[in-house]
Amino acid sequence: MVTQIAEINIKEGANEAFEQGVAKAVPIVMQAEGCHGISLNRSVEFPLRYRVMVRWESVDHHLVKFRASEGFAQWRALVGPYFDGIPSVEHVVDVPLPQ
Amino acid sequence: MVTQIAEINIKEGANEAFEQGVAKAVPIVMQAEGCHGISLNRSVEFPLRYRVMVRWESVDHHLVKFRASEGFAQWRALVGPYFDGIPSVEHVVDVPLPQ
Repeated sequence: MVTQIAEINIKEGANEAFEQGVAKAVPIVMQAEGCHGISLNRSVEFPLRYRVMVRWESVDHHLVKFRASEGFAQWRALVGPYFDGIPSVEHVVDVPLPQ
Repeated sequence: MVTQIAEINIKEGANEAFEQGVAKAVPIVMQAEGCHGISLNRSVEFPLRYRVMVRWESVDHHLVKFRASEGFAQWRALVGPYFDGIPSVEHVVDVPLPQ
């Protein structure tokens, strides 16, 4: 399992519209093959910066299968208009820690 | 509640030592006032890049109280030797999404 971290900067004044766009896109992303969850956070220090985190079975489920799907086009149509620049995308794996 | 995201690049060959240092530091960080959890992930694209994510009751619990504490000195002693450069630190808040 990997977590996609998409760091997205949005246009001034677009916070509400962007957050609503992500909320509308949740069922679309969740239907994608190999998708196991999506979350959204907003930076305290940079209020126009968000991170969308999506759990995938593998990097290829995201970059190969999802990116080529109709779901990705729908996602971009819902949230892309609010982007300020191109999001940066990285994938991470959990490192187990004692709790 | 906020999540601290510390992006840490480490020195070549130090992955195992760094991960063990973070594991040792977990009880120290968890004892800090206002700390509600810690997790660690490693980048797939950049294997020397980690993100430590810590849940805090507020930004001040991290930047004011923890940073001034003995616990922070212990944390830095355990993991600081493996840093390659100064970590970047940001705080984020969750944006609720329908699931």
